[in-house]
Parts: sequence; C-alpha cells; structure tokens
Amino acid sequence: MKITTVKTYEAMSELAAATILSKMTADRRVNCALTAGSTPKKAYELVISRMKNNNCSNFHVYTFDGAPYEGSDHTSTYLEMKKMFFDPANIKEENIHEITMENFATFDQKIEDAGGLDLMVIGLGSDGHFCGNMPKTTDFDSLSYEVEIKPEYPWYDVFVDMYNGYGQAVPKSFVTMGPLSVLKAKEVLLIVNGSNKAEALAKMLKGPLTEDFPASALRLHSNITVIADEEAAKLIS
Amino acid sequence: MKITTVKTYEAMSELAAATILSKMTADRRVNCALTAGSTPKKAYELVISRMKNNNCSNFHVYTFDGAPYEGSDHTSTYLEMKKMFFDPANIKEENIHEITMENFATFDQKIEDAGGLDLMVIGLGSDGHFCGNMPKTTDFDSLSYEVEIKPEYPWYDVFVDMYNGYGQAVPKSFVTMGPLSVLKAKEVLLIVNGSNKAEALAKMLKGPLTEDFPASALRLHSNITVIADEEAAKLIS
Amino acid sequence: MKITTVKTYEAMSELAAATILSKMTADRRVNCALTAGSTPKKAYELVISRMKNNNCSNFHVYTFDGAPYEGSDHTSTYLEMKKMFFDPANIKEENIHEITMENFATFDQKIEDAGGLDLMVIGLGSDGHFCGNMPKTTDFDSLSYEVEIKPEYPWYDVFVDMYNGYGQAVPKSFVTMGPLSVLKAKEVLLIVNGSNKAEALAKMLKGPLTEDFPASALRLHSNITVIADEEAAKLIS
Amino acid sequence: MKITTVKTYEAMSELAAATILSKMTADRRVNCALTAGSTPKKAYELVISRMKNNNCSNFHVYTFDGAPYEGSDHTSTYLEMKKMFFDPANIKEENIHEITMENFATFDQKIEDAGGLDLMVIGLGSDGHFCGNMPKTTDFDSLSYEVEIKPEYPWYDVFVDMYNGYGQAVPKSFVTMGPLSVLKAKEVLLIVNGSNKAEALAKMLKGPLTEDFPASALRLHSNITVIADEEAAKLIS
Repeated sequence: MKITTVKTYEAMSELAAATILSKMTADRRVNCALTAGSTPKKAYELVISRMKNNNCSNFHVYTFDGAPYEGSDHTSTYLEMKKMFFDPANIKEENIHEITMENFATFDQKIEDAGGLDLMVIGLGSDGHFCGNMPKTTDFDSLSYEVEIKPEYPWYDVFVDMYNGYGQAVPKSFVTMGPLSVLKAKEVLLIVNGSNKAEALAKMLKGPLTEDFPASALRLHSNITVIADEEAAKLIS
Repeated sequence: MKITTVKTYEAMSELAAATILSKMTADRRVNCALTAGSTPKKAYELVISRMKNNNCSNFHVYTFDGAPYEGSDHTSTYLEMKKMFFDPANIKEENIHEITMENFATFDQKIEDAGGLDLMVIGLGSDGHFCGNMPKTTDFDSLSYEVEIKPEYPWYDVFVDMYNGYGQAVPKSFVTMGPLSVLKAKEVLLIVNGSNKAEALAKMLKGPLTEDFPASALRLHSNITVIADEEAAKLIS
Repeated sequence: MKITTVKTYEAMSELAAATILSKMTADRRVNCALTAGSTPKKAYELVISRMKNNNCSNFHVYTFDGAPYEGSDHTSTYLEMKKMFFDPANIKEENIHEITMENFATFDQKIEDAGGLDLMVIGLGSDGHFCGNMPKTTDFDSLSYEVEIKPEYPWYDVFVDMYNGYGQAVPKSFVTMGPLSVLKAKEVLLIVNGSNKAEALAKMLKGPLTEDFPASALRLHSNITVIADEEAAKLIS
Repeated sequence: MKITTVKTYEAMSELAAATILSKMTADRRVNCALTAGSTPKKAYELVISRMKNNNCSNFHVYTFDGAPYEGSDHTSTYLEMKKMFFDPANIKEENIHEITMENFATFDQKIEDAGGLDLMVIGLGSDGHFCGNMPKTTDFDSLSYEVEIKPEYPWYDVFVDMYNGYGQAVPKSFVTMGPLSVLKAKEVLLIVNGSNKAEALAKMLKGPLTEDFPASALRLHSNITVIADEEAAKLIS
C-alpha cells in the first residue's frame, strides 16, 4: 500500500484524475470500475474537462455495486454515474458495464473474459465499508454477491435516508463486487477526504484485520494506492 | 498506437503530466525514462506542483541519451533534467539512473534487472529522430549504443549550435537507448506540439517504415500513446 | 530474444509443451494462438497426455491463419488443429476462436477485447514466413489481413501441392494475423527443428530486417523465446 | 484460485516442472521463489534434466525462508536447495538470492527493486503452514519477518526432530517471507501430494479464513494455481 497525502480535496482530485486520465489515453483496452458518491465528483469534472470530445473507445467502465431503482431498468449507482460521469464524458453505451440484480453472479467472469479490471477507483465509508461490502454482511472470501438490507444492520438507516431522498421504499437487497473481486483488480485507487473519514482511514491502516471493518482487507491488496487530503490523514501522520 | 489530439500545448501537458503522476503515486517500484527538451517543460511543472513534498521513493527515473559536458561528470541531458525536473521534484540521487559514455553497453541489462521500463516519455524530432536515434545513424536492431557526431550527418549543425550555446566544442560522440530499448518499454508516451512538428508526425504515422526516418519504428510498439496539440496534428486529421 | 537450444525434436517439444501447460493451469483466462503444422505435433501430444480430463475453462485458443476448405464452414487450419489438438485436448467449442475469411478485419479487436494474446506459439518457414506472412506479400505495419494466392509468388507451388493433397482447387486467398498482431502478443514462442530450417533461423537472427524475409521482424518483439533443436541451430552456434 | 488434480505425484511433478521451465526459457529476467522439501523433488529433477547445460542467466531464484545452520554462513533452506536444485541446475551464484537472519527486513524491498516475484512455488504443511508462516506465529499483515522457535508452539517438535537430524541444537528463531510477501507475488503455484495432506488442502479451501490455519490466506491471492495428486485431493472432489 502506498499512501500519498495532499493538502486539499482539490489536490486529491487532481491526482485521482491523473490516474483515470492515464487509462483513458492508453493504447489498449482498459477496464475501470469507478465509484459513485461525492468523493470523486471533482476528479470526474477534471477528467471530463480534459478529455471531452476525444475518442476513448478503448476505455471501458464498470459499476461495482447498485440497488434497484423504481421506474428504471438500471441500478441507482448506474443512474448516478450516468449523470455525473458517463454522459458528460461521452462514454459510449457499449463501453459501460453495469452490475445488476440479475447479472451479479456472472459479473466477475464477465470481467475476467474482458482481461480483468485494470483499475478500481473506490472510496472509504466512515463505517469501514468499501464498495457495498458493509459491516455485518461482508465475507472476505466473496466474489460479487447480493446483500440483504435488514433493519438489524448498523447501516440500515443510511439506506432508509437515501431511498427517502429518492421518494422510494428501501429495496430488499442490493448487489456488490466482493472483497475477492477487489483483490483481483490489477490496481486499486482509494480516495479519501475530510475529517469525518480520519478515524476510518486510521482503522483501515492499523486496526484489526476483520470482516467487521471490511476495508481492513484492502491492506492485503498487492497494488493499492491511497490518496488522502490532510483532514482525512490527520490521524495517520 | 493510440492518438489523442487536444487543442493546446497546455492541454497536451496536462495529459502527459497525468500519465507521469499516475506512476509517481503507484504502489510499487516504477521505472520511467523521461525526455529532456522544451516539449515536456510544462508537463514537468504540473507534476512538480502537484507532487512536491511527497515521498516518491518508488519512482525511479532514467535518462535515455546524453553527450559529454566539459567540466562535469554528468551528461548534458542529465544536467538539463536535473535542473528542469530531478531537483524541483525532489527525486533522490539513488532513484536517478543516468546513461553515460561509460555504462551504455550494460544499461539495458541494468534496466532489465530492475524490472524493465514501465514508461518512456519521449518527443519527436522534426527530422524524425526519437531519443538519440538520428537519420543516417539508426539501426532498428539496436539496444543502447554510441553515436559518432560527424559533419556529414544532416543533424551535425544542430549539435554545433547546441554546444556553441554551451560555449563548448562539439564532442565526438554521444550515447542513446536504441530502437530495441524503446520497443521493450512496457508503455511509451510520445508528446508532440507545434506546427513545426506536423510534417514529422504525419510521416511517422503514414510514411515508409525506414531507418532514414527513425520514428517510423514507433508504429511497431505494442503499447504507445501519442498526445499531440492541434497544430502538430493538423496534417493527420 | 532468448534462444534455447536442445539436442532433439523431443527435447524441443518438451519445452514447448511446458510453456503451453503453464498457461493451461493458470488461475485466470489465458489467450493462446497456436500453430498448426508438423513442428508442434509432439508438443501437443505431451500437453494432451498430461492435461487430459482436466477442466481448462480458462484456456482459450486462437487460430492465426487459415484458408477456405471446400465442404466446410471452417478454415483448413481450424480443421487441422481440431484433429491434432482441440478435440484430443477437450477444448470446448466456446473457447476456440477461429480467424476466418469473414471476421479477419475485426479479429485483432476481438482479441483486444478479451485481454490480448498471452502467448503465440509459432513456427518458422524455410522461406522466412511466420503465420501467413509470406515473402512478397508482407507489410510489417499490418494487423490481420487477407492475402491473395497468385502464381507469381514464390510460395504459390506450396499451396498448389497442399490443396492437391486435399483434392481441392487452390483458393484465391487466405487470411492471417499480421506482423503487428504478433508484435502485440505478450509472449511469443517460436519453435524450430530440423536442418532444413537452419538457414532460415540464421537469417531470421542475423540477416537484414526486411519484409522480403518476414520473420526478421520477430527480432523487434519485446518478449520472444526461440526453442530450437541442434540441427536447426547448427548455423547460429 | 484454480485447482488441477492429477492422478499421481509424477503427474503433479510434470505440471509443476512445466511452470518452472516456462520461466527459465523466458526472454526477460524472471524472479522465482522456490520451495525446499520433499514435495518438489521430482519436479526439480525434471527441470534439471530438460534444461541442463542451457544458459538461464535470466532466471533468478529466491529462498523464502531459512534458519541458521551451524558451521555455515548459509541457512538450512539454502543448503538444501543448493544440493537439490541450484547446483545440478547450474544456477549461477549471482542469480541466487537468499533470505537470511540478517537481510530479511529489507528482503521484500530487494525483490521489489528487481521487479517483483514472477512466481512462487510453495508447498502446504499438514498443519496449515506455508513458507515459514506457522500456526500461532502468523500475522496476515506481515512482510518478511523473524519467527521465534518456542516449546509452546505446536510445531516445535518438528524443528527439534529436524535439527536432531542435522546433529545440531534447535536455533532460537528463523526467518520467512510473510503472507503479504506471498500476496504480492504475481503468480503462486501450490503443489500438494499424498493423503497426509488431504485434510489440510480441504481446510485451506473451505475452512475458516484464520491466522490459526495460515494457508487459508492463500484464498485471497489474485493468481494462484493448485496442483494436487488424487490422494491429496480426495476430500475436495
């Protein structure tokens, strides 16, 4: 694991954008799984402004988690990524690969058949989740799987709030690439910003290796870069 | 070969900087051969401003050509790179690997023993040279080699002017990594800007494959990205 | 280029079989283009006897050239490989990828979309051809292409004899992966045996780099292993 | 993880030898960590008989564990490997890299600076150990480390017997590459034979992921091949 700490969210976004851009200009097919959420927002804006109007037919994107969204055939994650990145970056439909409630069981094989993931860009939850690998439901041995959304889980309320925000009922389950899927990616880029992530980052790096804090598994990845702003890194100096 | 065309020198520099930055933040040793000259100047400035003060002990740099420089143990290329990039980017001495008049015959093996070059960033001469592979002296079959500087070569006057600028006599020879050395690099990034390079870029892409125009060999590289500004790309639309 | 010389055809076959077996047991999808002809016969027998009855769903095979064969939807090369290797090795239909008169123009992209070729096992023609890259019709800059079969070519009679052997008329053309396709393969294994190949091997290694002797281009590959028996290697000691 | 099951120890040895041979004939530096012990004995014999007298200057070997051996500057593992493989395979001194009581703390960096391990060939202990990662002393987060040999450990008697066999006192500690070192290797080949390993193999594959059974961590490797004979595989059909 290599950790780079920079002063600001903007500086973090510049370095994250650099890694994504380096894949978009590559002279061969590149498969990247990209995170949704607020952390990568600025990085995607930088990527879009620098690559806009350029042919990136070599660049394939994968969503790595998602839940059903009423009134759409797509997952919530896909819809968010479409708005935030796929559309403004002009990624063609045939270069977008969505994990869904229907295809998750064969998603890892599909990735394998396309040469594997060259890059995953992921974030870190303050509760230690990464992708949809949540406390209480994570098994380090898993490839992509379905996760039930139950009131007894500590993260249930987050899903309630999110789906309330959509004006929808909480679905019964969602899907995610598992820890093993992530360990198989050739390169992982973890981006972390803000003081509310400081404790999680410290725990990820130095806490026990346990499924109760899923991101601790990332320590076992053979090629993982962490880019953090100073606030997120304040407990690991 | 993948070609990305952007509007300006600044935009080209942003994409070149991205590829270099993605190597500097990597979680493993990365070996990069970086070009001197005016083309990469802005890219290096961007890299320096974004990575300054960060530990990049994983990042190793190689010079790929050089001529003797009076009063110094180093080559002209090393001295230029030291000023333009190595010093301001805080690259440690032990991470800098210089090709010299003395070590060129074992330089490729030295690179091989460090895991090979992950990236070469090179420019394109308007006469078709790349690295120090010049018209009239290039053999596609060569690893690193020594090149005599003789008045009968079409590029002799360029060397005269350059050494006059230094207030020195033209040396008898210089060294360079050869076409085979470049073909062995895992990834090549060729950056080209300005209308004075437009003809050379067009010839590199569509002209005959010949040692008289050394850069035509780059078409045979298995993983090469070209980033050009609009002026340089005006003949290849 | 790395050259390993062994005493006999059997010893050459053992080493060639080793490289193929190491791909079949791999823990990820592996794409291999395999040559037909007499040279690899013993190597395939060794592979078959050692892997028979094992699941190799990760192992994908590609044919790299082929001509129409009357009465079949498949090429001559496919039919030969089916008998010599695909069937006895229990390679499943969905893991076999045939270059055809119809798909050759998109064959390289298809390979790219599957992660690229991990290995090509090829032979050397005594006239310097490799795959279907023949004297007089080879362009080093080509990906997969169609080759006309014309009486003026020096190799025309070989095709006449071959198709006479099938009891068929010589077809008008065939298809082959090109020199660029081969340069893109991550690893190339060239197997050569017999004194009738000795001159070709010497020329490939030390003769001029020219499209008139297509195999000279293999010197430019970044990762190529040659395994030769003593008879084939007798001029290169 | 990919598992290949073959009938006999000899058949297992053939496939293991194939993977090693494919590295020895490679056209670039290859770094392989190779296990001592009885399991690989036949595989090494096959490798030696097929490559003997060939130049393998590209092939570098690493020991991955070792204990002091009285009267020698080398570890017990090195001495065993020297006799069983390094000498009969004509591996040159400069291509042999020994982990020692003195250098273990910098051994992973040394490997990294040589481009990383391309292959590790390891065995499986019936108590679940791999390399020197033993029950009670293994931390999944470790690179190379020193292990104390104490009477309270379940494997203490094994060491006593081994050193009695040498006519020496049991040393206080030994060194080993850690689980993280192994997870960083690009490819791992685990060879297992004999019914006395059947329970361990089943546990490794399906038992809990726990430091009490160190080999369970191998499930998290992104590229690992298991080759087992039928006796070792009898509980995992």
